[in-house]
Amino acid sequence: MNTNAAPDTPEHSTRFRVQIKHAVAIGPGKADVLQGIAATGSLAETGRQLGMSYQRIWSLVDAMNKDFVEPLVIKQRGGAAGGGARLTPTGEQVLALYRAIEEDARIAAARRLPELVALIRAGAGESGSN
Amino acid sequence: MNTNAAPDTPEHSTRFRVQIKHAVAIGPGKADVLQGIAATGSLAETGRQLGMSYQRIWSLVDAMNKDFVEPLVIKQRGGAAGGGARLTPTGEQVLALYRAIEEDARIAAARRLPELVALIRAGAGESGSN
Repeated sequence: MNTNAAPDTPEHSTRFRVQIKHAVAIGPGKADVLQGIAATGSLAETGRQLGMSYQRIWSLVDAMNKDFVEPLVIKQRGGAAGGGARLTPTGEQVLALYRAIEEDARIAAARRLPELVALIRAGAGESGSN
Repeated sequence: MNTNAAPDTPEHSTRFRVQIKHAVAIGPGKADVLQGIAATGSLAETGRQLGMSYQRIWSLVDAMNKDFVEPLVIKQRGGAAGGGARLTPTGEQVLALYRAIEEDARIAAARRLPELVALIRAGAGESGSN
């Protein structure tokens, strides 16, 4: 799954996450979930786009709703589409802030990144280890 | 396991990783392995300090040795300590560059981070979800 929101080049990208103690209040995966809900208005469709189960999406949304001072996502049961979801104003604010911080970090990292990337072999990383 | 190299405060930290296509040539875990080898001169001791098996450490080292233009780590068999390991000059360069880029990103992210952190509930994230 490619969840890189801020690619530097087609092949190199940086990722950034905010950690709270040992858990992650918001990181690339959760930001993508918020963005998917904002774009589709649907947890199920967000799951399809991100290759995650509905259960997984809901578990991330539920954690975010509990970890922030106000819920980030409101679930809307019923209706023609069989129930949708949308971001609250706080959800929109968290997503925008996360992307802005990510971009700040990406721009700062880009300054010395070429020097590191120049030391990586062409075709490296294809084994998928982390 | 706490592998945060650049804490902002005791409770909040940012992490940063460089990705090559879908794999990770170097990220927080591999940087910690390099740093452990530089500090201890031993793969086994690095594994103990990071809570990873020797096999896991070696697999990360082996991947890095293949993914960069020159090996980052040289294994030294035999000797009094039953074999050690050390960083090559390229290994030292990669570790230093990685930490410098991480610090650049951390400083840039810190500017707007308080605004995001202010939206997180006290005690959030204790469930360990990601």
